Amino acid sequence: MTIIIARISSIPDATPQFREILQALVAPSRKEPGCLSYELFQDAEQPSDFITVERWADDSAAEAHLATPHVAAAIAQASSLFGQPPLIHRFTQLA
Amino acid sequence: MTIIIARISSIPDATPQFREILQALVAPSRKEPGCLSYELFQDAEQPSDFITVERWADDSAAEAHLATPHVAAAIAQASSLFGQPPLIHRFTQLA
Repeated sequence: MTIIIARISSIPDATPQFREILQALVAPSRKEPGCLSYELFQDAEQPSDFITVERWADDSAAEAHLATPHVAAAIAQASSLFGQPPLIHRFTQLA
Repeated sequence: MTIIIARISSIPDATPQFREILQALVAPSRKEPGCLSYELFQDAEQPSDFITVERWADDSAAEAHLATPHVAAAIAQASSLFGQPPLIHRFTQLA
């Protein structure tokens, strides 16, 4: 299993629009082959900060996700709204 | 429900010791009243970086966690090993 935890931030004024773009990614991502779970969180005190916790069957499923049309569309829509570059890291679950 | 996502980093040389301290926190934390889940992850590329994803029944359960003897002991053990101050944030689950 491959676990991805991504931190994604919008510029403050664009948070509602950015949030819609991220929310629209959830359903098609969950339908991808090899997607075991895909959860989206918003920081309660810093609402421009979002985190996804994603479980994929393997590295190739996680990489294929980044090449899907819905991810490409989201990146295009959000291109001018990123507060900082997304931090997308692979994790090992210890417990 | 209160969701806490914490980012905790060790100084690089202390990563194995730091990891043991974090792993020792899991079992007693899961036994606390109001702990719905408590997961621990280690960054695969930056092993000195750890994330916990914690689900608590409510804010008071999450706050009580920080006042437990096992958390106090872990902070005491890890006090000289933190790579940076822990970032402990409350999140809303959007999906």
